[in-house]
Amino acid sequence: MDERGAPAKKVMRELREASEDDLHFRDGRIFGSMCTDPLPIARRAHAMFLEANLGNPGYYKGTWRLERETLRILSKLLHGRNLGGFTVSGATEGNITALWMARNTTRRKEVVAAKTAHFSVRKAVDLLGMRLVEVPHDDMYRADVDAIGRKVGKDTAAVVAVAGTTELGQVDPIDEIGELCRDRAFLHVDAAFGGFVLPFLDHPDTPPWDFRVAGVSSLVLDAHKMGMATIPASHLLVREASHFRKIAVESPYLTSVYQTSLLGTRNSAGVAAAYAAMRALGRSGYRQIVARCMRNTRTIVRRAREAGIEPVVEPIMNVVAFRVHDVESTQRALDAKGWKVSTSRNPRALRVVVMPHITAKSALAFAHDLVAVSQKG
Amino acid sequence: MDERGAPAKKVMRELREASEDDLHFRDGRIFGSMCTDPLPIARRAHAMFLEANLGNPGYYKGTWRLERETLRILSKLLHGRNLGGFTVSGATEGNITALWMARNTTRRKEVVAAKTAHFSVRKAVDLLGMRLVEVPHDDMYRADVDAIGRKVGKDTAAVVAVAGTTELGQVDPIDEIGELCRDRAFLHVDAAFGGFVLPFLDHPDTPPWDFRVAGVSSLVLDAHKMGMATIPASHLLVREASHFRKIAVESPYLTSVYQTSLLGTRNSAGVAAAYAAMRALGRSGYRQIVARCMRNTRTIVRRAREAGIEPVVEPIMNVVAFRVHDVESTQRALDAKGWKVSTSRNPRALRVVVMPHITAKSALAFAHDLVAVSQKG
Repeated sequence: MDERGAPAKKVMRELREASEDDLHFRDGRIFGSMCTDPLPIARRAHAMFLEANLGNPGYYKGTWRLERETLRILSKLLHGRNLGGFTVSGATEGNITALWMARNTTRRKEVVAAKTAHFSVRKAVDLLGMRLVEVPHDDMYRADVDAIGRKVGKDTAAVVAVAGTTELGQVDPIDEIGELCRDRAFLHVDAAFGGFVLPFLDHPDTPPWDFRVAGVSSLVLDAHKMGMATIPASHLLVREASHFRKIAVESPYLTSVYQTSLLGTRNSAGVAAAYAAMRALGRSGYRQIVARCMRNTRTIVRRAREAGIEPVVEPIMNVVAFRVHDVESTQRALDAKGWKVSTSRNPRALRVVVMPHITAKSALAFAHDLVAVSQKG
Repeated sequence: MDERGAPAKKVMRELREASEDDLHFRDGRIFGSMCTDPLPIARRAHAMFLEANLGNPGYYKGTWRLERETLRILSKLLHGRNLGGFTVSGATEGNITALWMARNTTRRKEVVAAKTAHFSVRKAVDLLGMRLVEVPHDDMYRADVDAIGRKVGKDTAAVVAVAGTTELGQVDPIDEIGELCRDRAFLHVDAAFGGFVLPFLDHPDTPPWDFRVAGVSSLVLDAHKMGMATIPASHLLVREASHFRKIAVESPYLTSVYQTSLLGTRNSAGVAAAYAAMRALGRSGYRQIVARCMRNTRTIVRRAREAGIEPVVEPIMNVVAFRVHDVESTQRALDAKGWKVSTSRNPRALRVVVMPHITAKSALAFAHDLVAVSQKG
């Protein structure tokens, strides 16, 4: 550290230079992230609550109220009643917390999940000293229910199902998995991405995947993905709030008696941002955003298909993976044209996430370049 | 969720009302938190990097550079060389990550710590399926080195020592503990609070507590406490970066190949805030802030002492606990006068944290009321 501080002007210039080296959603070139430009009112809300720390809730009664209201809104959206829950930093923390609760409640160590589950499940299992029992998926890349049925047993603490897989946006058959899990194991739903998409789709033809399914014990959804809030704003909801007791740690010197969150000091500006986004948009606002993302997704799929590039599965959300001849070189060629896409591993394909920062115009331009670079290959 | 969104004006009014129900550091009444009002330039930096997500580092090269530079600055401040590390959301995440690394590297399960360690150590141990071996402290509330020596054995994964205990701001004899741990167990230093105080004290008479001590494997310090940055900005530094490999999880669909952080999507606005605070203040800036906090702490101790109220130990940092007749009723009486203090459990005492948002005037006014309510009791 330098002896003397640098002038504010100089520091601000350094920050601006750094920001210029970051990519920005507003440029409409990022098809490789599940985050997006937060709603302007969410940004403003975030900046207003920079001090807020629900790790010490007694000092932040206003933020606490916003959090409770947000959870109430989400409980209703997800057909829950008297759910417990709190804001977490992201679905990774939510997945870890849910499995921690399942382990401590059941005193069992096995987690059953399809290989299409997010890698944070693997991380959680290692962290918690649990064992992952991986099951296959069906030909639509959804968890294989029969395989789960064969694996759920006396050592199973929890099953993890996904509503909106990271690679393909697929939804596991959560209603059937719920039947299997009822009274046998925890069922945690990772709806990080799908939680703010599925309720707002025009023609949802997915079977129930939320708290309508009696077997679902907990669910996480990210307001900082399709919820249009700022990072960190994710919500962990649990059917039996009493299960939180199993992971509670006494928290002396704070205004709470126990702490059930993984983190201690917590940025709670995201709480205000999530509240602001949900209040400002309402169901109709989210429906519009989701409809636009789906239109742009369909545009890209149609153009690609015309050129013989097929999606791995027909997308039900705004995530789609394309079978291209050479995934790496296509990704590199698109990168050279300024488009950021990612890849899926299972199957190996070009993965495209069409978030709200993508306009109709950039979706078209992207589709054009996707076709161009694929035909060159 | 309502069908229609609420007008922006209405949402903003609700947010303002919530903010009014929160306490604010700027009012100078909070002596019960280790957080403070961030530096204005840190707030500005935070707001500039709301999108940044180092969970997906390839898109945020500017933020990444700020993080690397911040870690370089801190490595030097803490006398480390070629340290590994990254920004974490807080010392809780830092403590968990360090113990996770220790468990996976040593394949042992015991964590040795004094009962004066932060409760997040207990949380980490439960989460990780480890065992806590609690050792006593000396009469100054520092970890008892001899007791640690007796407990470190073939099952010990790590020892946790503290530079700035939460209750009393005491510093464990880290140099001696380091000697004990060398080549026998990981030694993790929780410098959440002390990390931004000890290097800037006028007359530091604590023995070495950072990477000068050869036995220290890792250290966490919170820029969102005395570092004047925003939440979340905490730094985990490790002597052997290669140990991160033991907790790495493959991270497909992202721009990184492996992820070694506990969290996935990460608010990285705190990275920019920490950078801005350190650059703008420099050593001299932090020295001034620490000097002012220490002056105000001494004012409170002197006034209290004149009235016969003794601190548990002579404070070496801006945390002090007072022996008062009835801790709860004193806390309540101070609360009624608008002062927020917390309590310590070991020993039961009135705990006062004198953060940078406390002015000389509010320190005096607080001391006056502390004396008044104590004499009434």
